[in-house]
Amino acid sequence: MALVFGGVEGGGTHSKAVLVRSDGRILAETEGPSTNHWLVGVDKCMEAINDMVQRAKKEAGLDPNSPLRSLGMSLSGGEQKDAIDRLIVEMKERFPSLSQDYLITTDAIGAMATASDHGGIVLISGTGSNCKLVNPDGSQIGCGGWGHMMGDEGSAFWIAHLAVKTVFDAKDNLATPPHDITWVRAAMEDYFQVSDLMGMLPHLYRNFQKSHFSGFCRKLAEGAEARDALCLYIFAQAGKVLAKQVEAVLPEAQEALFGGDLGLPVLCVGCVGSVWRSWELLKPGFTETLAGAAVASKWLRGRFRGYNLLTLQQSSALGGAALGAQSAGAAVALDYAANASVFYRHTFESSQ
Amino acid sequence: MALVFGGVEGGGTHSKAVLVRSDGRILAETEGPSTNHWLVGVDKCMEAINDMVQRAKKEAGLDPNSPLRSLGMSLSGGEQKDAIDRLIVEMKERFPSLSQDYLITTDAIGAMATASDHGGIVLISGTGSNCKLVNPDGSQIGCGGWGHMMGDEGSAFWIAHLAVKTVFDAKDNLATPPHDITWVRAAMEDYFQVSDLMGMLPHLYRNFQKSHFSGFCRKLAEGAEARDALCLYIFAQAGKVLAKQVEAVLPEAQEALFGGDLGLPVLCVGCVGSVWRSWELLKPGFTETLAGAAVASKWLRGRFRGYNLLTLQQSSALGGAALGAQSAGAAVALDYAANASVFYRHTFESSQ
Repeated sequence: MALVFGGVEGGGTHSKAVLVRSDGRILAETEGPSTNHWLVGVDKCMEAINDMVQRAKKEAGLDPNSPLRSLGMSLSGGEQKDAIDRLIVEMKERFPSLSQDYLITTDAIGAMATASDHGGIVLISGTGSNCKLVNPDGSQIGCGGWGHMMGDEGSAFWIAHLAVKTVFDAKDNLATPPHDITWVRAAMEDYFQVSDLMGMLPHLYRNFQKSHFSGFCRKLAEGAEARDALCLYIFAQAGKVLAKQVEAVLPEAQEALFGGDLGLPVLCVGCVGSVWRSWELLKPGFTETLAGAAVASKWLRGRFRGYNLLTLQQSSALGGAALGAQSAGAAVALDYAANASVFYRHTFESSQ
Repeated sequence: MALVFGGVEGGGTHSKAVLVRSDGRILAETEGPSTNHWLVGVDKCMEAINDMVQRAKKEAGLDPNSPLRSLGMSLSGGEQKDAIDRLIVEMKERFPSLSQDYLITTDAIGAMATASDHGGIVLISGTGSNCKLVNPDGSQIGCGGWGHMMGDEGSAFWIAHLAVKTVFDAKDNLATPPHDITWVRAAMEDYFQVSDLMGMLPHLYRNFQKSHFSGFCRKLAEGAEARDALCLYIFAQAGKVLAKQVEAVLPEAQEALFGGDLGLPVLCVGCVGSVWRSWELLKPGFTETLAGAAVASKWLRGRFRGYNLLTLQQSSALGGAALGAQSAGAAVALDYAANASVFYRHTFESSQ
């Protein structure tokens, strides 16, 4: 099985595994539970990965006792080098027939490798948010990804929190809301099943569940689609702070990233309940902020002429497999044009 | 023991109990652990209160088996009526010889009752923050007190968080810091014993302890006293958001609160590591914001001519005892002039 490469996309709620040949042909795909080792612990993370990959081997008609050439894993929470190294050592020990070589990288890098081998910007907004610039030479720089206590700007959590905070501040007379809160307040009372602000406290502390709290974002998207002014405002703010993260990494972008037909590629990644489904709502704040960024420095004025927003058509397990193969001295050919597609294209007027 | 009244000041870290006669003479004072029932649970809360009060009875040479006339408890976390009612029912059942009658109120109301029976504004800034207006007729209105996930503006937690967030955003190039971050970043690495931003994550999530995180505020006060520009800025911001909470409740203040020699009384309450010890650092933002509030509406322009900041010289267990006696149809005479003292007096120029 020396020419079979495995890839894993590990998320906070569920995961995927894929087996591919070096020509990129997919042999099998399987699904499994969360593999974020910060959330489920190292043991459950490893077991879930082993189970998905071994099932995929059987599905592909391969011998489960024969190790893959490599297994590349693109994991949310795959950031800290020490933890990652320990995870690989333990996997080799516990599952000797799983794979010869291993690679663990972050969800952002795995997504990028699925869409392109020339780099770009990955902008994740799911329950949390995170932005990563990958240069054509492989160098990286990030912004965000610190979680709801220190950021997550523009994520579903952030949107839900901004809405709830606007209701609290209006009730407290601490801040004048930018628009009438009636719809948002009623939606909050309905979603969280509370009748007053005090009732929100268990949702914020004792019984806090980030995914449930963030789920209120979907309700707000409905409000915005029905043209509630406060909901529209909140999504426009989210668009702004997402674009701010792109602006933050732009000074480190290599020249080649701005060229080509496509302009700067920005790969927009979400998960269940992704805010990217509400792109039209984010658009006013997002485009305005990047238009400002494009003229903010002399260096960018000459280079940043437009951008393209892309979305993945395939699991980032594919990118994980490609990166895993690469680190093992092999290669998997991916069909990048099929793996990602452009959903929004913007050219700045000043550059025409 | 029909003429002995008990009072409790219950905090998030420690508590106090006091026994007084109706003429206000203190018979005994004792201390104990946290009695915030949200933090320690109902059982530990009740046991700690019973233990403090029974020790106080012995200290005063009274029979522990003879109940007090009333026990008034001023508890942090004493906001929610249902929980409070349950707590009283359980205390009566478990400790029949503790007291004949019971009253539970919040830390803000207990503090106010210690300082005055004519009302005023209580502004709490300890680990968390909270503002409560008490009118001469007893009516109340609050702002804040929702905890670190939804407010706590101007608290030690908020100050520490703003400092850390400024370092994160500068490092991420997400926002330009208002001043150089060098001192704050070094202080953060020293206080939390970390060498990079990633190291902060356990302090924010897995091992999050609000009191420890908030303790970083003391370090920042040292930086501000040594004239570090970012620390000075952060404390001025805290002064602003604390004054904003006062501004938020002002429209509900009854006329009589603005009169008298003292102007509007604002009772400033903290706990261990109180930010009020750093009043000189808060002052620029605080005074500027209230000066703006004083001319913000026609109604306030005629009335809000000055304010006085007071601090308690006695435990708010005394106020608790007085309120407990009152609700039992009795009275405890307190020496308000001795219980609180003015530490800052401000008269607006426009009214002279």
